[in-house]
Amino acid sequence: MRFTGTIKVNSRGHLEAGGVDVLDLAQEFGTPLYVLDEEGFRANCRAFREVFQKYGDAMVLYASKTLCCLAVCVMVEEEGLGLDVVSGGELYTALRASFPPERIYFHGNNKTPTELKMAVESSVGRVVVDNFYELEVLDRICERLGRNQEVLLRITPGIEAHTHEYIKTGQIDSKFGFTLSNGDALKAVQQVLTTRNLKLVGLHCHIGSQIFDMESYAHAAGTMMDFMAEIKENTGLELPELNLGGGFGIYYYAGDEPRSPEEWARAVMTTVQKKAGEKGLKMPRIIVEPGRAIAGPAGVTLYTIGSYKEIPGIRKYIAVDGGMTDNPRPAMYDSQYEAVIADRVQAEPNELVSVAGKCCESGDMLLWDINLPSPRPGDILVTLATGAYNYSMASNYNRIGKPAMVLVREGKAELIVRRESYDDLIRNDIIPEHLARGKVIKIAAGKK
Amino acid sequence: MRFTGTIKVNSRGHLEAGGVDVLDLAQEFGTPLYVLDEEGFRANCRAFREVFQKYGDAMVLYASKTLCCLAVCVMVEEEGLGLDVVSGGELYTALRASFPPERIYFHGNNKTPTELKMAVESSVGRVVVDNFYELEVLDRICERLGRNQEVLLRITPGIEAHTHEYIKTGQIDSKFGFTLSNGDALKAVQQVLTTRNLKLVGLHCHIGSQIFDMESYAHAAGTMMDFMAEIKENTGLELPELNLGGGFGIYYYAGDEPRSPEEWARAVMTTVQKKAGEKGLKMPRIIVEPGRAIAGPAGVTLYTIGSYKEIPGIRKYIAVDGGMTDNPRPAMYDSQYEAVIADRVQAEPNELVSVAGKCCESGDMLLWDINLPSPRPGDILVTLATGAYNYSMASNYNRIGKPAMVLVREGKAELIVRRESYDDLIRNDIIPEHLARGKVIKIAAGKK
Repeated sequence: MRFTGTIKVNSRGHLEAGGVDVLDLAQEFGTPLYVLDEEGFRANCRAFREVFQKYGDAMVLYASKTLCCLAVCVMVEEEGLGLDVVSGGELYTALRASFPPERIYFHGNNKTPTELKMAVESSVGRVVVDNFYELEVLDRICERLGRNQEVLLRITPGIEAHTHEYIKTGQIDSKFGFTLSNGDALKAVQQVLTTRNLKLVGLHCHIGSQIFDMESYAHAAGTMMDFMAEIKENTGLELPELNLGGGFGIYYYAGDEPRSPEEWARAVMTTVQKKAGEKGLKMPRIIVEPGRAIAGPAGVTLYTIGSYKEIPGIRKYIAVDGGMTDNPRPAMYDSQYEAVIADRVQAEPNELVSVAGKCCESGDMLLWDINLPSPRPGDILVTLATGAYNYSMASNYNRIGKPAMVLVREGKAELIVRRESYDDLIRNDIIPEHLARGKVIKIAAGKK
Repeated sequence: MRFTGTIKVNSRGHLEAGGVDVLDLAQEFGTPLYVLDEEGFRANCRAFREVFQKYGDAMVLYASKTLCCLAVCVMVEEEGLGLDVVSGGELYTALRASFPPERIYFHGNNKTPTELKMAVESSVGRVVVDNFYELEVLDRICERLGRNQEVLLRITPGIEAHTHEYIKTGQIDSKFGFTLSNGDALKAVQQVLTTRNLKLVGLHCHIGSQIFDMESYAHAAGTMMDFMAEIKENTGLELPELNLGGGFGIYYYAGDEPRSPEEWARAVMTTVQKKAGEKGLKMPRIIVEPGRAIAGPAGVTLYTIGSYKEIPGIRKYIAVDGGMTDNPRPAMYDSQYEAVIADRVQAEPNELVSVAGKCCESGDMLLWDINLPSPRPGDILVTLATGAYNYSMASNYNRIGKPAMVLVREGKAELIVRRESYDDLIRNDIIPEHLARGKVIKIAAGKK
């Protein structure tokens, strides 16, 4: 068990975050509830920014897809990070939070023409171009709008990070990016140079997520610098920017051994410096994307324990009031989490149970075989390190509304995402005229 | 490839549904788009109802969790089916669609006290009690409200249907129901009889989903009838209702061999009749839950093809404007689908491609290794049999709004679920005062 930021056990043996007892949060806001530790979140932003900037010109991007809402965008902006967005919806959220567009990077393997137009019109800092088709479409859009756009090219360096199949993205058989090994990457560079409206300012790569192996990062950095040299040799162009992606691994569960931001920065920055020296290149500006490592450890989820079922000799199930709807990662990736009972964090974990979600589906299991201190109905169960890829992946499966999210700091809790109501769930439903007979017609009319 | 209902190839070689060319739908409503064939949906309702009622007193329940919105509830009501709901949200939707509460069955392994109260107050026909804890809570709630409630008990018969791990629900190691083999089921029956406010009217079981093996159904029916006899012997009580669940398998992909509703009805009803005769029981009312077999085959999803990436010797990727956000089943269960290009359904499928979604995640793949007729950017790709567990499981991952859904019939298309807008995505976001400085404060104020 590892508590980070302001998440800790208080003098009453309860879990607290931002100086607030989580029992009070459950009481005030109900469960399930996402809780985000403001100080922890900001400290994570700063940790990565400071270690990389110690080595030179570097920028850290926050990955919107890990956790995106207006309040989060404001904090990211205040901490001096850039923002990586992957859809019109993420870009819209950033803009509505007054995030400076020049610090926004637009990623994605299939940005739609509408999204590309929105990106150019909003003056985002960089579009990270993923493939030849996008290169053409984006150039055409810029032409039509009479705008120029600075771009990076996403390169697939053919490096496999040691991680889950679904989140490996640097290997050759990938939907993302220009393949380095078969010459596509160099072809793409040459092609950007022939466009009228796109200005190539650098490269991007991303070798996976939840990575613990610093060697993979160093290897990718070296490979990309070699390619920067190859580009200079072939085109004379010395690119000023190198985005090395990220996906920095965090602690979820016993066995996870996250490295320090410092180790990552050292692995990457010394490799780049060494290569720059060897190849006679200027040091490019380095950009990194820690991914889940910013929001992930700063979030916890509160659930209320409800029913239980003991099958002697087989298993004891306890069930909570959330599940795969608010955290699909266990069902999707077999992800493991640690959990505590909020009001007796340090009590002896004397009962082996498996924690089920409330969805009507056998696969809706949050935790298998976890020892907890006599969990009982009404207890508040807290899963740890749920700040990333929980709210952002949440669904309304079983017509369950998404939980609220509160930001805690200095003993105060403030709502940053309201709980979805039953009316939210039907707000886009329409009953067409031919079905809206008698009494139901009123609803249909009201919804139009 | 199997087209059902009104989904077919028209004279121009285009796919059509409800007499509407899907190209026109893509044009009018945009993509991604869920399309539901009204006549097909209703025909599926009727097919199950008619074959079971041919054998005697039987009721078919529609599973809200496969696809739930106001318009769907209205159609289910008109077709004379009952409704299975598993959450307050599904119940709320049904009630707002004026669905008769007496035909509603409330399932779930961990209904919250609030949901149980809502169910009792709305006079739902049956609460399907899942465990001892719920039995107590529900009785207490009824006591407080001064109401009685008719209940079924969910029994875990220990039968394994041959299907995917996640959706097997009848085996002993299950979060659902009272275990038959260890005596818990009989104990539960005895316990209901001691409550003041609950009236036991029958039993429920559910052995899994996407089932093709009629023998499993017959086996479960026999086991449950044996238990009905055991209950009569032990308590003198002859239960009038037996809900045998469902999860009837449908055709998704070459190799799926769905059986006819008639085969299912015969397997179940003849087993129950035979057992009733042997055991000297009256024929109970039989209830079945076809699950995905009603909405599933009646739905298709339209996507626009965007970018592509060819990796010679390895794979060609094409990408669409949706993916795991609107259909998480391939990522979650490795589910396979068939697909066509809308305007050349019968053209030679001459190109082997894999279809990627647009989410920034390697795991966002919709179809692996499918032959299509020269797919090109701008083409409309249609995935088939997506009526169930697509919209209902959709997320806003990557801050992507849920697609719209149209109901088609007799050459007309009507919106039944509006597309989520960018404003929908941020409508529950709040920027707290301490973050809302300068220009962003206006947004925060506007959201309160």
